[in-house]
Amino acid sequence: MKKIVVTNDDGLFSPGLHLLYEAVRGFGEVYVVAPMESRSAIGLGLTLHKPIRVSEVIVNGIRAYGINGTPSDAVHVAYDVVVGEFDLLLSGVNVGANLSLQDILASGTLGAAFEAAFMGIPAIAFSADVPDEKQFLDERYRRYLVESIRAIVEFFVEEGFPRGVDVVSVNFPRTISYKLRVVPPAKRRWKQKLDKRVDPRGRVYYWLYGEQLEPEPGTDVYTVLVEKHIAITPLTLSLTSPRVELRIPEEIMSGER
Amino acid sequence: MKKIVVTNDDGLFSPGLHLLYEAVRGFGEVYVVAPMESRSAIGLGLTLHKPIRVSEVIVNGIRAYGINGTPSDAVHVAYDVVVGEFDLLLSGVNVGANLSLQDILASGTLGAAFEAAFMGIPAIAFSADVPDEKQFLDERYRRYLVESIRAIVEFFVEEGFPRGVDVVSVNFPRTISYKLRVVPPAKRRWKQKLDKRVDPRGRVYYWLYGEQLEPEPGTDVYTVLVEKHIAITPLTLSLTSPRVELRIPEEIMSGER
Repeated sequence: MKKIVVTNDDGLFSPGLHLLYEAVRGFGEVYVVAPMESRSAIGLGLTLHKPIRVSEVIVNGIRAYGINGTPSDAVHVAYDVVVGEFDLLLSGVNVGANLSLQDILASGTLGAAFEAAFMGIPAIAFSADVPDEKQFLDERYRRYLVESIRAIVEFFVEEGFPRGVDVVSVNFPRTISYKLRVVPPAKRRWKQKLDKRVDPRGRVYYWLYGEQLEPEPGTDVYTVLVEKHIAITPLTLSLTSPRVELRIPEEIMSGER
Repeated sequence: MKKIVVTNDDGLFSPGLHLLYEAVRGFGEVYVVAPMESRSAIGLGLTLHKPIRVSEVIVNGIRAYGINGTPSDAVHVAYDVVVGEFDLLLSGVNVGANLSLQDILASGTLGAAFEAAFMGIPAIAFSADVPDEKQFLDERYRRYLVESIRAIVEFFVEEGFPRGVDVVSVNFPRTISYKLRVVPPAKRRWKQKLDKRVDPRGRVYYWLYGEQLEPEPGTDVYTVLVEKHIAITPLTLSLTSPRVELRIPEEIMSGER
């Protein structure tokens, strides 16, 4: 019997978490361990400087463990406190897509998945390009996500991850499509800009915002935003390229002085 | 004349920032743009939901721009508000090493470097395996860092980054060594654990902490902590491996229903 941990970064009360649980509860012993509150854009943040509390709660009929921490904390709480060793980490469904390396590296949904991957546990992160969580309550869209997630998780439970894949990121389009594309992440989705304003006291301040770049065909961004299909993005825990060579002569340092 | 931006995640008052500035001010127009306060372990976090203010200040004789934001925000403030286009981003010197992919993905020092790399700007992150910032005030150690950073930056300013390198992460050992090793990051440095406690009111809480794993020879962790030399780690903005292939048959989805 597989042990599966479900977490997210929008918090225990997000309908995205509940539909993920509903999609996979037939696949084994499923445990829900998640932040009590939304911890979006936290990346791989860990709570090292304050105590973590774990509360067993029932949310919408599901037994869950809520923590006052980050999605990455939740993975450790699951492993060390609630479940012990487990076989699969599922994270999401995030309100909003996590497309491009830029989003992936900053996302808490992916952060939890990477955290599990560091422990050698396969992880799948789910995100949907919805404007807000209300779309998860639309019965047709909700059924679409539940059925698709079930099919995708079933595939990976049976086949396992290919060698070299540590995390799989799945992004759903805003409108229903059952077409799957296996695509790499774009490098960049946003060009950040600062918008200058003046407050009532005459002092300058800025809003940082992201302007979307033209999506490049063959990437996750293009698949989800332009073609409007499901993007499946296999990720490898590595920021080094075997083809890169850097040589620095020892002589650039003038030696012990 | 090169335009260089210096930032960090320990904040404008960290002596690590000042020695980095001192090391490189001869190489061009050098601008200091950094968080006012320590924003460690923030990764690539951006401040999107509150206004950013920029203050021109003089800290220890250096003109600097302080922001109420993250290291990644600082890169955008530099580009959009303070400097315009620039040629090189330097981040650090961080109090504490940033070794292994695990540290790299969570670090604000590296986060700023990645942010610049997404914009196509080469970036070098500097970190030192010191217990606290007091070691930066030790005159011998400080001179060691200044001289080493100067030599390393000079090398990259003259040679450029090899093709495929987006960010270079440099980690200094706790004791003085001028030996350089070009090494990949270890995947993992820490095994996280939770330490169970009971508060005076009888309620359980946990401290999350990292237990250091045995360092693997040939990695950044081994170089800095065991051999005690300088680790130079070239990084590529990519989480995909060209050798990995994932095939999912379309039939796993039962199609439009």
